[in-house]
Formats: sequence, structure tokens, C-alpha cells
Amino acid sequence: MKAPTRRYDYETDGAEIYRQSFATIRAEADAAHLPADAEKVAVRIIHASGQVDLAADLRITDDFVAAARTALAAGAPILTDANMVASGVTRARLPRDNDVVCLLRDERVPLLAKEFGTTRSAAAVSLWGERLAGSVVAIGNAPTALFHLLELLADGAAPPAAVIGVPVGFIGAAESKEALESYAPRVPHLTVRGRRGGSAMAASALNAIAQEAE
Amino acid sequence: MKAPTRRYDYETDGAEIYRQSFATIRAEADAAHLPADAEKVAVRIIHASGQVDLAADLRITDDFVAAARTALAAGAPILTDANMVASGVTRARLPRDNDVVCLLRDERVPLLAKEFGTTRSAAAVSLWGERLAGSVVAIGNAPTALFHLLELLADGAAPPAAVIGVPVGFIGAAESKEALESYAPRVPHLTVRGRRGGSAMAASALNAIAQEAE
Repeated sequence: MKAPTRRYDYETDGAEIYRQSFATIRAEADAAHLPADAEKVAVRIIHASGQVDLAADLRITDDFVAAARTALAAGAPILTDANMVASGVTRARLPRDNDVVCLLRDERVPLLAKEFGTTRSAAAVSLWGERLAGSVVAIGNAPTALFHLLELLADGAAPPAAVIGVPVGFIGAAESKEALESYAPRVPHLTVRGRRGGSAMAASALNAIAQEAE
Repeated sequence: MKAPTRRYDYETDGAEIYRQSFATIRAEADAAHLPADAEKVAVRIIHASGQVDLAADLRITDDFVAAARTALAAGAPILTDANMVASGVTRARLPRDNDVVCLLRDERVPLLAKEFGTTRSAAAVSLWGERLAGSVVAIGNAPTALFHLLELLADGAAPPAAVIGVPVGFIGAAESKEALESYAPRVPHLTVRGRRGGSAMAASALNAIAQEAE
């Protein structure tokens, strides 16, 4: 097999593409309101979204990066609402070959959603069960999953170490993220205010906390 | 297992969430410049991105939807540069249980990328080989993969039926999508001008063309 004739002028060195991308983001994005130890996480999320103005909507608590990183280093699982998030986690970056769990396709989910009167994404959150305590949660799709998580915590469930709460969309997304920000007692968290969010942002945040190296 | 106490006021009916989301998008987004048969595809992509202003950057050729839908109905494979795109395709929507192929983790990729002097994402495109002819291509991550595809076509490779070209980012993304738009002979395509793009947009476009039903 041979390479096609090069006809366009573009960067083909993966490491150099990353370097130039991160330099562009650092030149254009204003992340001054974020904790110093969250800067690389912010850069990764902006990279995944292609939008430097995302920085203005990013909210990361002072304790988020340390809490999430410590939990992963101790072997905590990653729990997510979306298979795309699980697919986007770079397994080689995980410090302890941590489990990455999405139960959306679990066979119990359809019936449970019907019983609970909620979405399958939300019902699947209840199936995390004992694994929730001390985990790193990443909600990258469904607002109902984030609301459901907060309701489980309010009912007394042992909390996760940290929450990446970036559901996307037009119905409930902004409101679910407001609920995360105002939840008491506060859970270390990262969120994107408003409608923007999604699985790529959630996965990139996970990849950034999994390893300090860019 | 019992449902947590409902503490927030939010929509929990999945079908109703979709209905309200799509209605919001149709009320706010201006898709008048797009082909009539691409309206549902545009709505799905906007839904995945959480941004109605994405419509202004969307470009969909008049022949794209028919070409992509006809190919899938005939059993054509979906070829993609990113595992997240493959993960986001709703298999139940596919008309012929079509193959969804991402070769990024193929064992031949690292050596081939080195030989070609390009990224692994681009090298993996060469491994599509004979499957490229008549396929539906979805590039949702790497600008180098889209450039590489156009170079293969310019060298005489049999073209895909349609291309979803929505790589994301700061280095080469906008340029690779300009190259797709100006490539001659034109391939039926969908793209998003500028830096925005990504696996969620690519997967949502695939899900929209896979089935007419919302």
C-alpha cells in the first residue's frame, strides 16, 4: 500500500497538531476565572468543542481536579450516562485501568424506566448502585440523568468523588447544570452553563484528569 | 429498587423531550439555505450540538440526503475516522444492519502512519480500501483524515456515495472542510464551516439519514 499524492498543505504530525492547537487555545481563550490546576482540563474541553468562547461558560470548582484525580489514582470507576463518553475515554491514560461503566444498554433499564416514570438514561443511573460512592461521574448527554443523580444524593446516596456534568441540549440541560451548581452539600464538579455540552466534552475532561501530561 | 424522590421539575418523557427539543430548534434556527430534504438532518445536528447558530455554518449539497439514504438502503457500509462516531450510531435505525467501520485501532495503523508520514487517523482511511466505493463516509474528528480521503480520490480511488465531513478543531479543520466543499468532481456532502464539528454531529447526521422518522 502506498500513500496518496500529497496535494494539500497541512500538518501531519500528531504531536505537533496537539501542540499548535493547545497554543491557539491558550492565546485566544480567557480561562482566568478557573482554578489554576484546572487549566489543562479547560484547554482539552475547548479543544474538543472547537470553540474558545466555551471558556466563559465553564465552571470548575476549586476542589474538582484534585478530587477526581485522587479518585482515579485510587482505582475509582468512571460512571457515565452515554456510550459515546465511554468510547471516548483513552484507556491508556487511566492510572489504574479503571472501570468505565455505562449501563444504558443494561437489560433491566427499559422496565426500570417505565416503573420510575423517567427516561432510560435516568433509570440507568440508579443501576450504578454501590459503585457511585467515591466514583468519578461523567454525564455528557442526558439532563434527566443529572437531575436523577442529584435526587439520589438528596435521598442519602453516598456521593461520588467528583462530577463532570455537561449534558447538552434544549430541554432541561441548562436547568440540570444550574441544579448541580447550587446543590448542597456541594459535590466537586465541572460544568458548562447553558445549552452546550456533550459526550466529547465529557470524554476530553476525563482524559485530561486521567493524566497530567498533555 | 425504588425511584428517588422527585425534587426538581423536569420533563421525564423521552419522546416528549425530543418533540420539545426539535420544536425549539425549528423556532430558533434559520435553515432556509439548506435543501428541503435535509431539514431533519440539520435539526438533528443542531440538537446534538446544543447550538441553533450552527445552522449558519451548515452546508449540505442538494444531492447529499438522497445519495446517503439510497446507499444505506442498498446496504452500504458506514466508514468513520473515530470510534466515538461508531459508538453514536443507533444500530436499530440502520435499514440493512449496515457495517459501521472504524479502523483506528487496527494493528496495521501505527506502522502505516509512520511509512506515510501522517497521522494514524489519516493512515486508517487508506485501510478502508475497496470498501470506500459507494460507502457513506463520516469524518467527525481528524482534519488529516478528510484531507487524506480527498487525496485518495484525486489519485483515482472509487468515490463514496456521500461524505459527512465535520472534523473539529483549531489546526486544519476549517481548511479541510473548505477542501471538501471545493473538491471537483463534487462528492455529495454535508459539512460545518469553521472550527466546529465533532463526533456527536457526525453520529447525529448518520442517525438522521438512516431513518426518515424523528
